[in-house]
Amino acid sequence: MTMEEKKYGVLVSVFSPCGERFLPAGYKSDLSLEEKLERIAATECILGVELDYPTDFEDPTKLKPLVARFGLQVSNVEIDLFGHSKWQYGSLSSTDKKVRNEAIELCKRGMDGVVELGCNQISLWLGQDGFDYPMQVDYRSRWQNIIASIKEVGNYRADVNVCLEYKVKEPRTHIQLGTVGKALSIANSVGLKNVGVMLDVGHAIMAYENPAESAALLSEFGRLFYVHLNDNFGFWDDDLIPGTVHLWETLEFLYWLEKLGYDGWYSLDMFPYREDPVAACVQSVKNIETLIEIARKLDQEKINLLQEASNATGMIDLLRNAVLK
Amino acid sequence: MTMEEKKYGVLVSVFSPCGERFLPAGYKSDLSLEEKLERIAATECILGVELDYPTDFEDPTKLKPLVARFGLQVSNVEIDLFGHSKWQYGSLSSTDKKVRNEAIELCKRGMDGVVELGCNQISLWLGQDGFDYPMQVDYRSRWQNIIASIKEVGNYRADVNVCLEYKVKEPRTHIQLGTVGKALSIANSVGLKNVGVMLDVGHAIMAYENPAESAALLSEFGRLFYVHLNDNFGFWDDDLIPGTVHLWETLEFLYWLEKLGYDGWYSLDMFPYREDPVAACVQSVKNIETLIEIARKLDQEKINLLQEASNATGMIDLLRNAVLK
Amino acid sequence: MTMEEKKYGVLVSVFSPCGERFLPAGYKSDLSLEEKLERIAATECILGVELDYPTDFEDPTKLKPLVARFGLQVSNVEIDLFGHSKWQYGSLSSTDKKVRNEAIELCKRGMDGVVELGCNQISLWLGQDGFDYPMQVDYRSRWQNIIASIKEVGNYRADVNVCLEYKVKEPRTHIQLGTVGKALSIANSVGLKNVGVMLDVGHAIMAYENPAESAALLSEFGRLFYVHLNDNFGFWDDDLIPGTVHLWETLEFLYWLEKLGYDGWYSLDMFPYREDPVAACVQSVKNIETLIEIARKLDQEKINLLQEASNATGMIDLLRNAVLK
Amino acid sequence: MTMEEKKYGVLVSVFSPCGERFLPAGYKSDLSLEEKLERIAATECILGVELDYPTDFEDPTKLKPLVARFGLQVSNVEIDLFGHSKWQYGSLSSTDKKVRNEAIELCKRGMDGVVELGCNQISLWLGQDGFDYPMQVDYRSRWQNIIASIKEVGNYRADVNVCLEYKVKEPRTHIQLGTVGKALSIANSVGLKNVGVMLDVGHAIMAYENPAESAALLSEFGRLFYVHLNDNFGFWDDDLIPGTVHLWETLEFLYWLEKLGYDGWYSLDMFPYREDPVAACVQSVKNIETLIEIARKLDQEKINLLQEASNATGMIDLLRNAVLK
Repeated sequence: MTMEEKKYGVLVSVFSPCGERFLPAGYKSDLSLEEKLERIAATECILGVELDYPTDFEDPTKLKPLVARFGLQVSNVEIDLFGHSKWQYGSLSSTDKKVRNEAIELCKRGMDGVVELGCNQISLWLGQDGFDYPMQVDYRSRWQNIIASIKEVGNYRADVNVCLEYKVKEPRTHIQLGTVGKALSIANSVGLKNVGVMLDVGHAIMAYENPAESAALLSEFGRLFYVHLNDNFGFWDDDLIPGTVHLWETLEFLYWLEKLGYDGWYSLDMFPYREDPVAACVQSVKNIETLIEIARKLDQEKINLLQEASNATGMIDLLRNAVLK
Repeated sequence: MTMEEKKYGVLVSVFSPCGERFLPAGYKSDLSLEEKLERIAATECILGVELDYPTDFEDPTKLKPLVARFGLQVSNVEIDLFGHSKWQYGSLSSTDKKVRNEAIELCKRGMDGVVELGCNQISLWLGQDGFDYPMQVDYRSRWQNIIASIKEVGNYRADVNVCLEYKVKEPRTHIQLGTVGKALSIANSVGLKNVGVMLDVGHAIMAYENPAESAALLSEFGRLFYVHLNDNFGFWDDDLIPGTVHLWETLEFLYWLEKLGYDGWYSLDMFPYREDPVAACVQSVKNIETLIEIARKLDQEKINLLQEASNATGMIDLLRNAVLK
Repeated sequence: MTMEEKKYGVLVSVFSPCGERFLPAGYKSDLSLEEKLERIAATECILGVELDYPTDFEDPTKLKPLVARFGLQVSNVEIDLFGHSKWQYGSLSSTDKKVRNEAIELCKRGMDGVVELGCNQISLWLGQDGFDYPMQVDYRSRWQNIIASIKEVGNYRADVNVCLEYKVKEPRTHIQLGTVGKALSIANSVGLKNVGVMLDVGHAIMAYENPAESAALLSEFGRLFYVHLNDNFGFWDDDLIPGTVHLWETLEFLYWLEKLGYDGWYSLDMFPYREDPVAACVQSVKNIETLIEIARKLDQEKINLLQEASNATGMIDLLRNAVLK
Repeated sequence: MTMEEKKYGVLVSVFSPCGERFLPAGYKSDLSLEEKLERIAATECILGVELDYPTDFEDPTKLKPLVARFGLQVSNVEIDLFGHSKWQYGSLSSTDKKVRNEAIELCKRGMDGVVELGCNQISLWLGQDGFDYPMQVDYRSRWQNIIASIKEVGNYRADVNVCLEYKVKEPRTHIQLGTVGKALSIANSVGLKNVGVMLDVGHAIMAYENPAESAALLSEFGRLFYVHLNDNFGFWDDDLIPGTVHLWETLEFLYWLEKLGYDGWYSLDMFPYREDPVAACVQSVKNIETLIEIARKLDQEKINLLQEASNATGMIDLLRNAVLK
């Protein structure tokens, strides 16, 4: 692998025990943050690390040298608005002003923290802000709370980007900030330059989106801030290795990221329950690198003509010849 | 049934032979428009009729007395941007400027037509504006075309509302204007008062939306213009009789329409392949009326408290007692 | 509630902290088995308790008096072939003969144990016997292993029923024993009187089955041994309170259980992450009782005529009048 | 392409106008059977033709020379139990003995017909034998009818194979013979050597099956009789060109067909609404040929070791290197 590898990142949670509800303790032993960073460095192809605040760290001044010691950079910090039972009925959308304010304050502290880490971005995944049953919540006031809270967070400091990560379900049966369209509507409505969207490929796929199309739509409004790569079988956030199910869509997504001039991180968000996480990362990057190389060799002129004509059989011919051995 | 019935509408296509790909000629014989209107009047509970322009009529001056003869009103006119092979690769998004302009002109003529019919609204369902295969189209230029075309249509005359009807798939495997969030983003981005959204309950459900939440979100931005009622099994636009699958969500949707102050039509969009369409309409209205009556009797104060607390078990108790015999 | 309540059971895991991958420690504190049984008794409507062997108990002679102390009975014992990382690549289907034999021996010990408990049944949920990625396993040898293992378990002692619980996915992206048809094929192929099927309503729904139809099919072959009640949104095993999403299908399922002469337990398998489990059980039983009462009052003769004619609108009319207030 | 091409077949319906419910007349003009056969011959890579009896032909003695004239063979004849409104509430499962007998007689006449055509197989796709709404039918008697009818058909003459083609939905919202497991259960229960299963890859995928696993399971019981190739997005029978969505599963399926010793036809069942059907067939065969060639070059020994260990990352490495350029 070459210099391309510089842009790859990974969530440290990829190196967690990968617990799930039938095996909460997970499929492997727990590692310290230092051990996780060491493993990430051991992939030899990943430079960026995504951490959760405050789950992974509380004091950025202590974290900074630790990350640097392994030759890594902080690519993004997600704010933990989902991994504690206090958020079980919502964080930024909570009907309880105290809870809502606690969530907002956590975001602000996170924003201050990332600046110290030399990173200019936080991400908000509102995984608990939703509902499980029909009639469980008042959608109107919850949408109003979401919009107002994000506005307050975005306004806190303009030098830090706020990435909204959408996902249609899990751990709630319905998450409000669920699709690219909802995330874009909210980001546009908030109307701040530093509020945009995190496109998680698997989240897009489980919402029956074509990830490349979602990227193009976000980019059209200047809201494509960051991407997570992974894969799944279309119904659930399986968090598999990129390209192992949706090969064509993954190729297309990587092709479009370059076409759209996206120059941010390519970050891995996976749950390798039964796999060695280092191997999972290496295979992920190899899959991505291979597909990027293929994408770059595609005949642009032919593609333009075929797409102009919506010529599916011509495109299938072109792709088979360009992609398959 | 009572005066409530006044607000019910139906698409005349409900009275079509209901052809599908394995039986294109359909499950029953074809009727003339006059015969269809007669059947609609025979339901004795439906006042509004939705027609397709120009499939169902070309000359509004001839249509108007025909509709009036049966004591009906035109509740909406959908522009046929999907039912002719010339739109097979898109209408308002087409890469072919000639096709795109033809689509835009058709919308404008439709807007002029509805005014003559005493109706102030057209709907645009961009069912062919999408793609079937990965890599088939250039998403960016197509989104730009969609936005520009809708803007031009909306600007044509401010006295006619333009309703964007979203749907995630069929007849394309992917339709661009697919979800409530995308429709809202586009409507907001166009930024005209007369451009809003048609919420088809079945389309919402097949996109894993909660229809009531979609209504609340659209309403928050003043974009909830019109609703279609029907039901399905969550994966496809089965176009079944309302409330026959998603009872709780249908009840909730009707409850929220009143809560949001929606005072428009309650229009039926179904494909009763094997059912008598008159019976299907009557059962639909009876289901809706029954659920509206139940919704109105719900204890608002209790609901507010339960929703404030996201109290699912309390809500389930309340609903069982209020809804089931 | 009346004597009907006698047949209700519940899995003790309903009273677990309900951990999931984003909150492995769960939404509430851990309880001892004794505390869980106490809570179950506190529902005052549940008699049967399902336990996991050996997770919940190792020594049946110690368990028996504990269960009896709370006035409960053991309705079923599931063998833990999924909740330990040693099964991560399969238990009864494992390519490793040692693992496979360990699984088989565990089943046999469980069978001996249930007899001591005055229960005549174990259930096998092969949640880890599957695959996550295409090409990951050799399907043929795994199916052969599944069949041979189940045969050996079933043959171990004829006085204990062996219930195969099918589920299409989770924790693997694909579980081999996934659908009613596969479970029935395997049970029939094993060809033992004491090998049958556990029908979990939520598992049926997430496989796009109609649970009543699955029950009827199993019953036709004498393989309907036990049922789990719960609900979900059709895509995932949300493990919600029964009847809160699929009201009509739940009613139909309860109607068919009586029609088929099913006289076994009605057991609750839920994951009430954010709900009080006692309240969740009480609401479940109330929903079920209400629907059973409604089902019993349905006009059988009319139903027969309507079903003879596949008359959907007639049935909808009948159901609305019989079910809704 | 080489001699491999000899085994390819196609349904003549691929050359239909491809009508659907929004455009029943279809996207292209209607062709005579002769014209369809001419187009099939023009693909220069397809030898087998699947026809529908009696829709495509009534008199086999007239059909035989027509097919031969184009150098084609009849690979399979499907009995039309779905494309006429008389079957709208079921054919072999109908509650109406007259309808049921008519369906059975049609199958028998079809069996006689195929023998005259030098083909030894009919296929039964029971697309109308199901239900649209909860409570619409009596599942028990319908399953009994399905089993009894298939038994009668299978017993009619042992020299003709009867292939059961399963599909989970469309045109009914629920088809009884829906999954590989149900089809296998029924075929096994009927217990005749000449009754087996047609595996349509798209139908398997829309039922969340892995097609290779379904093939292996059927083969284990000697019931894998015939295959249809196509692709879709997992939720609906999109009938796309094979390998254009599920590349890995298609490769795996082709790999397994050879591993299982399947030596029957590779038949295309697609609906190329907007594509030239000749081009769609040629691209399909090229995709399949390419994937078969890749599959044959896979390192069997390595695969065995990796599958023995369920080693996903190892397999992903092997596949990327073997498949992608």
